[in-house]
Amino acid sequence: MENMRKKIIGVIGGHSCTKEMEQNTIKLGKKLSKVVDILVCGGLSGTMRAVCQGFKAGNGLTIGIIPSYNKNDANEYVDIVIPTGIGLARNVLVVKSADMVVALPGEAGTLSEIAYCLQFDIPVISVDSWDIPGVIKAKNVEDAVIKVEALLKRSNL
Amino acid sequence: MENMRKKIIGVIGGHSCTKEMEQNTIKLGKKLSKVVDILVCGGLSGTMRAVCQGFKAGNGLTIGIIPSYNKNDANEYVDIVIPTGIGLARNVLVVKSADMVVALPGEAGTLSEIAYCLQFDIPVISVDSWDIPGVIKAKNVEDAVIKVEALLKRSNL
Amino acid sequence: MENMRKKIIGVIGGHSCTKEMEQNTIKLGKKLSKVVDILVCGGLSGTMRAVCQGFKAGNGLTIGIIPSYNKNDANEYVDIVIPTGIGLARNVLVVKSADMVVALPGEAGTLSEIAYCLQFDIPVISVDSWDIPGVIKAKNVEDAVIKVEALLKRSNL
Amino acid sequence: MENMRKKIIGVIGGHSCTKEMEQNTIKLGKKLSKVVDILVCGGLSGTMRAVCQGFKAGNGLTIGIIPSYNKNDANEYVDIVIPTGIGLARNVLVVKSADMVVALPGEAGTLSEIAYCLQFDIPVISVDSWDIPGVIKAKNVEDAVIKVEALLKRSNL
Repeated sequence: MENMRKKIIGVIGGHSCTKEMEQNTIKLGKKLSKVVDILVCGGLSGTMRAVCQGFKAGNGLTIGIIPSYNKNDANEYVDIVIPTGIGLARNVLVVKSADMVVALPGEAGTLSEIAYCLQFDIPVISVDSWDIPGVIKAKNVEDAVIKVEALLKRSNL
Repeated sequence: MENMRKKIIGVIGGHSCTKEMEQNTIKLGKKLSKVVDILVCGGLSGTMRAVCQGFKAGNGLTIGIIPSYNKNDANEYVDIVIPTGIGLARNVLVVKSADMVVALPGEAGTLSEIAYCLQFDIPVISVDSWDIPGVIKAKNVEDAVIKVEALLKRSNL
Repeated sequence: MENMRKKIIGVIGGHSCTKEMEQNTIKLGKKLSKVVDILVCGGLSGTMRAVCQGFKAGNGLTIGIIPSYNKNDANEYVDIVIPTGIGLARNVLVVKSADMVVALPGEAGTLSEIAYCLQFDIPVISVDSWDIPGVIKAKNVEDAVIKVEALLKRSNL
Repeated sequence: MENMRKKIIGVIGGHSCTKEMEQNTIKLGKKLSKVVDILVCGGLSGTMRAVCQGFKAGNGLTIGIIPSYNKNDANEYVDIVIPTGIGLARNVLVVKSADMVVALPGEAGTLSEIAYCLQFDIPVISVDSWDIPGVIKAKNVEDAVIKVEALLKRSNL
C-alpha cells in the first residue's frame, strides 16, 4: 500500500536566510516540484518559506508542520498546515513524514532534524548544511535534485 | 492568509464499526467531499477507514495523522500520512488541523477528541456520538453535512 | 521491578476554583499525602495548585507536567517541573504517569484527561467531576481517599 | 520561585556501552549525586541505566522520561518514570527538564539531544560525545563534574 502513495520530500533549514540563499532555495523548490509531488517542511519563515514558494510555483502541494496551534504562523505558501502545538518536538514529525530530506544551512533546529533522519534511516542530502557522518553531501541545489531523483528510483525506499 | 487556504474537515470515531455504520460513514465521506476539499482523520481502521474511502470516492484529498511511526498502519484510502509517533497525543493534532469536526460513535479516544474540540472552540457536530454539552447534534449523516455547509458559510471560521 | 516503585497519584481538575473548592482541594492533597508518596498533576493554577499545596504540606513529592517550556509557569508547590512544550498533548502524560487518578471539577481539559484514563484503563475517581461511564464516583474528598487506599491494596495495580 | 527549586542534572548518551564505559558512567552518576539532587535521563538501558545506578547509589532521585507508555521499559534504577508515549519526541523533554546536561558517547539520538540543548541555551558538557560548536568539552568524568559544579554556582542558571 505504502508504495502506492505519492512520495514526499522533506526540506529542512534555518528560519532566516540571505537574499541569495532565498533565491537559491526558491530554485530548489521549483526543481524538486518537477520530480516529486508533495513537500513537507516546518512551515515557518526563511528557508521554509522560500522552498514552499518555489515548490508551489511548480504546482506542487506543500505541507507545513508547525510548532504552534496558530495556523497563521505558517508562511503563505503552505497549502496544508498541521498546527501541532508540540513545539520543537514537531521536528520529528517533519522528518518522519518525508521519504527523503534535503538539508539546507540552519542552526541547532536543523541539526536536530538531521539527527532524526539518521536515527530513522531516512536519506538526508546536505547542501552546505551540517557535516555529520551519514549525511549525503550535494555540491549545490542542482546536485541535490539529481540525488533526490536517484533515491526515488530505488525500489526499497 | 489563513482564510485563503482550503478548508479542512475533521472526522473522528471508533476503530471498529458494524457493516451498517461502515456504509453510513462511506456515505458521509462522499457527501463531505462535495462541500470541502480536504479531510483529516486519525488514519486507522473502522470509521476512519470508511470516511476516507467515501471522501476519496468523491475525489477529495485525505490526510491521516497516525499514532505510530509506521506509514503502513494508515488505511489504504489515506493520501498523506503523518506518522507522528506520539501515540494518543496525536488526537490533539487531528482535531486542531481541522476547521470543524464531525464526531461518529466511538470509545474513549473519540471522547478525548471531542473534549479537545471544545477546548479549542472548534465546532463539533455529533452523529450518535458522545452527548457532551457544547456539541452540535445532527440527526443523521445528511443533517451533519447540512450543518457543515452552514458552518462553512460563517465568515469567521 | 515496576511494582517496587513508589505509587503515583494523579489529580486532574480546572484551572480556576472557588475559595471553597480550593480549601477542599488542599484538604484532598493533605489526605492523599498520607497514603501515597508522589503526586502528579498538570502543574498550573486552580485545583492543580491547591492539591500541590496540600500534598506538600503533608511532605509529599509533587510533579508538575506543564504544557509550556517555561518552568516558571508551574505553581510554587511543584517540586519537579517537566516543561514539555507539547501543549495540551501533555494531558496524556499527566494521566499515564499516574497509577490512579482523582478527577475534580474542570472544563474540557479535565474531560480529555478522564477520557485518557478510560482509554489506558487507569482507575479514575470523580469528586463532582464529569459523569462518564467507567468513572468511579466518590461522594466527597474523604470518600475519594478511601477509594484510593482500596485501589492501592489491589495487587495488580 | 524557580530558583528555589532543586536543580536537575540531565545526562544523555547511548543505549549501549562497553563494560568500561558502564563503570565510568556509574562513577559519573555517583559524583553527580554529591553536587545535585535530581537526575533526569531517557530512562532506558546503556549509559542511561549506568548513570541512574550511580546516582541512586549516592542517594539521588532519578527521573526517566521514556518514549513508550510502558513503565517497565524504564531501567530498575529509575525512581520516577514519565511514560510519555511520544517516541523520540521525548528527547526534547529530557533536555528541557534539566538545568544543565552532561553528554556521553551516543548515536544520532544523543546528537538530537545536544542540538536541543543548544537551541534552548541549556549548558551541555561533553565527555567524548559529539563535537559540535557550543558544546563545553570535559576531559573526563571528574572534569565534567567540576564543570557542573561551576555552572551550579552561576546565579543566572
